[in-house]
Amino acid sequence: MTKIAILGIAHMHGYSYVRALKRMNDIEIAGLYDEDRSRMNKACKDLGIKPCEKPEELVARSDGVIVTSENSTHREFVEIAAGAGKHILCEKPIATTVEDAEAMIEICRENNVKLQIAFPVRYSASVRKAREIIAGGLLGEVVSLVGTNHGRMPGGWFIDPVLGGGGAVMDHTVHVVDIVRWFLDCEFTQVYATYGTLIHDIPVEDCGLEMFRLSTGQYMTLDCSWSRPKTHPYWGDVTLHIVGTEGTLFLDVFNSKIEVYSNEKGSRWEAYGDNFDCLLIEDFVEVLRSGKDPFTRGEDGLEALKVVDAAYKSFREGQEIQIC
Amino acid sequence: MTKIAILGIAHMHGYSYVRALKRMNDIEIAGLYDEDRSRMNKACKDLGIKPCEKPEELVARSDGVIVTSENSTHREFVEIAAGAGKHILCEKPIATTVEDAEAMIEICRENNVKLQIAFPVRYSASVRKAREIIAGGLLGEVVSLVGTNHGRMPGGWFIDPVLGGGGAVMDHTVHVVDIVRWFLDCEFTQVYATYGTLIHDIPVEDCGLEMFRLSTGQYMTLDCSWSRPKTHPYWGDVTLHIVGTEGTLFLDVFNSKIEVYSNEKGSRWEAYGDNFDCLLIEDFVEVLRSGKDPFTRGEDGLEALKVVDAAYKSFREGQEIQIC
Repeated sequence: MTKIAILGIAHMHGYSYVRALKRMNDIEIAGLYDEDRSRMNKACKDLGIKPCEKPEELVARSDGVIVTSENSTHREFVEIAAGAGKHILCEKPIATTVEDAEAMIEICRENNVKLQIAFPVRYSASVRKAREIIAGGLLGEVVSLVGTNHGRMPGGWFIDPVLGGGGAVMDHTVHVVDIVRWFLDCEFTQVYATYGTLIHDIPVEDCGLEMFRLSTGQYMTLDCSWSRPKTHPYWGDVTLHIVGTEGTLFLDVFNSKIEVYSNEKGSRWEAYGDNFDCLLIEDFVEVLRSGKDPFTRGEDGLEALKVVDAAYKSFREGQEIQIC
Repeated sequence: MTKIAILGIAHMHGYSYVRALKRMNDIEIAGLYDEDRSRMNKACKDLGIKPCEKPEELVARSDGVIVTSENSTHREFVEIAAGAGKHILCEKPIATTVEDAEAMIEICRENNVKLQIAFPVRYSASVRKAREIIAGGLLGEVVSLVGTNHGRMPGGWFIDPVLGGGGAVMDHTVHVVDIVRWFLDCEFTQVYATYGTLIHDIPVEDCGLEMFRLSTGQYMTLDCSWSRPKTHPYWGDVTLHIVGTEGTLFLDVFNSKIEVYSNEKGSRWEAYGDNFDCLLIEDFVEVLRSGKDPFTRGEDGLEALKVVDAAYKSFREGQEIQIC
């Protein structure tokens, strides 16, 4: 029986991860800790799991830990788990500052603990197929990339500059950066970015446009925003148009959909096929059981966060920034 | 070790089924028989399996039989397999005449043999999700259905009126009929159909339009054709637009695609996710091992063929035909 602790349930993905765990065999959810007691008690009731008053006690009786607290509090929970020698799955972005992210990776290394970052998009069959096509050479040399990551404005702590660490740019840049790093085995080297609060009355940006240079030579743009109205038929939108010397490719990660228009539930796309969150959770459980390395590591989270950090700096300074 | 015989390799799906079997554990492909020796020898070389001179001998040393011969020869191979008491997966359409189909079901019943018909579309995650939405009542009462099943003109024995039993109407009607029967738990009761040879210089029809009435009260139209040019980016196209009193649904079965344009391989959609043929073959192997009933039975094949048979009669007589 593999026992898993949930630290923080601020991020709605925590609900999804618990449901994925409950579908698996020989898994026990050891309990949930959240600083916000009413949020903790509601989630425990909704999910049928136990609340815990002290994260250290919960971690001590677990084999692995999932951190789905607010972005800015990932570090404190990772430190508790790493200090107890427990492997960790941490929601993305890894942290809100590069300093925090580096400290998290360091404490995990010191304690010989594996740190997996929740980049569910990489687990999608569409993304794996696109990588296979690129690796197979069908596009020739990749010349340029144009990406999008739109969504609805999530509200709550996501729009708190401290807890979220930013707005749409922080929330959405990292998914596309992660899959491009994986597709091309590259790093992001420069960024020129602009952003604005154009749609909602919120204290963080809801739209961002970024232009990158990659270590493998290409230019890439990314349009990331919380620009989809509440009535938009789906929560997610990740696309990538890749141009090569011998071909082009258009990937729409959430294209596996049935279009439904219903009096009861409005316009919606019903997704079928892969459940990314389940694949991510299965991978984490496999890390716990077999000791294998996670597919998406702390270092991947750090590299993606460095890109976001440099993008914000670029906007503040009005110039292209080198990503260190 | 489950041993499987392949009878006939005229249908290209035979290749796909053998490859699916080779991915599974504890499966032995006992061999391949085909009346056309050069076709048999080529397939055996391509697939790395053994040719057999006598279908009866091959069947005798197998646990189950897959029939992928020409449409008009399904009956003779099903009779050999059923006579030997072996369970059968038979390519669709079940046969080219209702008389053959009824005889096949009867001989399987007499010999206590299970007859599964290859309707791979029903195994698609998109189709299963659509059924779940309909069954969940989100559309209210279903009022009407508009379907398509297009494709490229396959050539070869498919355009031989005797071996194929017809053209695009025979080839394509049955997939959509089968999923609608499954969605609504209904039968097709009347058909008014027209067809023509409008695109290719071939002795069978390449386009058909059909209007049906269903036992559950709805009208439905189906546009089935071999109308896609050779450069069309994908071989398959099955869609269904369903209107209900409380909502509508649009299902595009092959929507899980990445768009690729390549100098080397032209315009194409690369599919990701479900491999329907693998799911179909896994179901057949489960039938052999557990004795469970197949998901798509001989009776489903017969009902779909009755619809096609009545559609051809409707065109010949220029009037709506009752489907018996």
